[in-house]
Amino acid sequence: MLAGSVDSEMRLIKEIAGRFSRHPLQKNGLLEADSEILDLSNTVLRYLVLKTDSICEEIKEKLYEDPYVIGWMAVTVTLSDLAATGAVAHGLLLTLQIPRETDEAWLSRFQDGINEACNLYDVYILGGDTNFDNSVSVSTTAVGTVNEGIPLMRKNITPGDLLFVTGPLGSGNAYAYSRYLDPRLNIGYAPIARLCEGRLLKDCASACIDTSDGLFPALSVLSELNNIGFDFEQDLEHLLHHDARRVAIEGKIPTWMLLAGPHGEYELLFAVKPEQKQAMQEQFEHFGAPIYLAKATESKAIQFTSGALDVSCAPSLIANLYHQSNGDVSSYFELLKHQHQKWCVTE
Amino acid sequence: MLAGSVDSEMRLIKEIAGRFSRHPLQKNGLLEADSEILDLSNTVLRYLVLKTDSICEEIKEKLYEDPYVIGWMAVTVTLSDLAATGAVAHGLLLTLQIPRETDEAWLSRFQDGINEACNLYDVYILGGDTNFDNSVSVSTTAVGTVNEGIPLMRKNITPGDLLFVTGPLGSGNAYAYSRYLDPRLNIGYAPIARLCEGRLLKDCASACIDTSDGLFPALSVLSELNNIGFDFEQDLEHLLHHDARRVAIEGKIPTWMLLAGPHGEYELLFAVKPEQKQAMQEQFEHFGAPIYLAKATESKAIQFTSGALDVSCAPSLIANLYHQSNGDVSSYFELLKHQHQKWCVTE
Repeated sequence: MLAGSVDSEMRLIKEIAGRFSRHPLQKNGLLEADSEILDLSNTVLRYLVLKTDSICEEIKEKLYEDPYVIGWMAVTVTLSDLAATGAVAHGLLLTLQIPRETDEAWLSRFQDGINEACNLYDVYILGGDTNFDNSVSVSTTAVGTVNEGIPLMRKNITPGDLLFVTGPLGSGNAYAYSRYLDPRLNIGYAPIARLCEGRLLKDCASACIDTSDGLFPALSVLSELNNIGFDFEQDLEHLLHHDARRVAIEGKIPTWMLLAGPHGEYELLFAVKPEQKQAMQEQFEHFGAPIYLAKATESKAIQFTSGALDVSCAPSLIANLYHQSNGDVSSYFELLKHQHQKWCVTE
Repeated sequence: MLAGSVDSEMRLIKEIAGRFSRHPLQKNGLLEADSEILDLSNTVLRYLVLKTDSICEEIKEKLYEDPYVIGWMAVTVTLSDLAATGAVAHGLLLTLQIPRETDEAWLSRFQDGINEACNLYDVYILGGDTNFDNSVSVSTTAVGTVNEGIPLMRKNITPGDLLFVTGPLGSGNAYAYSRYLDPRLNIGYAPIARLCEGRLLKDCASACIDTSDGLFPALSVLSELNNIGFDFEQDLEHLLHHDARRVAIEGKIPTWMLLAGPHGEYELLFAVKPEQKQAMQEQFEHFGAPIYLAKATESKAIQFTSGALDVSCAPSLIANLYHQSNGDVSSYFELLKHQHQKWCVTE
């Protein structure tokens, strides 16, 4: 893959980009323009929605190792953020950093991950940039539009609003647990950006955030921005994804810990005004019904039940544990266990 | 700068992003939405124009070391590609990789470079993503629109078309020469993305490419895509930027070499049909007049005069020399000198 001439560099670009389908509205062919050009003459758009994100840390920490997963996630992480605004996604630009000696099999599986994700979401790789370096790093910039109505944002939650989520939670942390602490569990990971759900939510939810960083970190952000708390009225146990439930049982891990970690499941967490609840549920008639989580409260605390434990804590307390560990998995797990013991003693 | 809590992470984001002005049409404040949202309700746009580019190699090779230059270039490199399509630029997303121990002074100077470039171009940093790693790497994705007419592309040049450039050439290679081979020359570098010129060209040029990779590499791309050659009717000497002329004189470097290297000057290289020449010149009435370079020829060769040398060569020959050196500066310079000798002997 070493570039030795202009021709071989063009070949390399064609090798990397040529296996992605072109957007039907893309005006320029490969290399035919200095920028990527999308013909939106027939789209009456109101808002342009953009997001850039990298998955270098997940690769460095070997959370993602299979090139298929790396490709799938590169597409999914940024589209999930578009989903949380209710946008229609059009495509992505791909910034790739790979070692010069990357082999064809790796590249091909990486491209498969990208292609299958793009097919699922009906989006396209619009362009990109490839550089050689010792380690692999991937960033994408996703581009979408909101053509009518107003994009969803994170603010606009008031006490009494109802918090829902588009699907069960904890699969991202269950996967991380299986990768780092108990490989025998062999848990897979291929989360889906909730683009269709986001569009349904645009006109009935008051705020939305994705759970890319896990449930409690997302709650902490919503709490901070809206100056509110959340009261979970049922045991967290009913929120668990089946993979997370397996880890909870086999690893004897308290439920709340599987919702604490920073490796999320890319569901949409959204608030609905009580008077909008029925409209929201009607929107989801042909989808899985969203799961009710909690009520927004004036008191800026998170209150929940996890097994025998009743907790009321500062909204950022759980999210902070990861930051305190400086990203080190074993110290993080120790901090979680330590926090659990503290709560058990207080009870 | 080490992030130890959600609060300190939010502070970090505010520290990095908070010193950039917000786009007046950006709907979301910092952290207020999962994606960046630009309100284009009152813009009747036809084409969306996007470009992503990285300046990791230039940093790694210490071509850019001053954080101000890194910031300036991060903005300029992608906007120059938007310029070459004739787009109106709106803003950029910034992907930043920095060591955890990056100090405030570095960051502040980097932000100054970004801010001053954004001010000059009247664009904004719309959002971004920051990761910690051992080395510095910066990518940007630029977003623009073409609201009327058709974007400029690289194809559509036919024999007889006239090739022009928006300004003198060779300053990028002169800077690289001074950085790597003769620091006494102390040559500065702050190229400007030719956004205004690109918009003027949109309706009178037939094709356009920026000279981010230098003149001869750009010619090689145009030649390949359009299946044509170029005949330079004057000595290349008249194209030289004053910095390049200084290097040519003090370093006794043949003119063509200063236009060969891959470190460009970010001018726009464009073709005009003979019947459009006057219209183009009228467009540039209030700008510096573009410099005439060459005529497109049916024969797929580049013909030029550089001092005592008359050359006719394959369009990719000069661009390939850099690729053959695998990016090593001294072997590249040897290859250039060797090529020069070869031509001198053939004469």
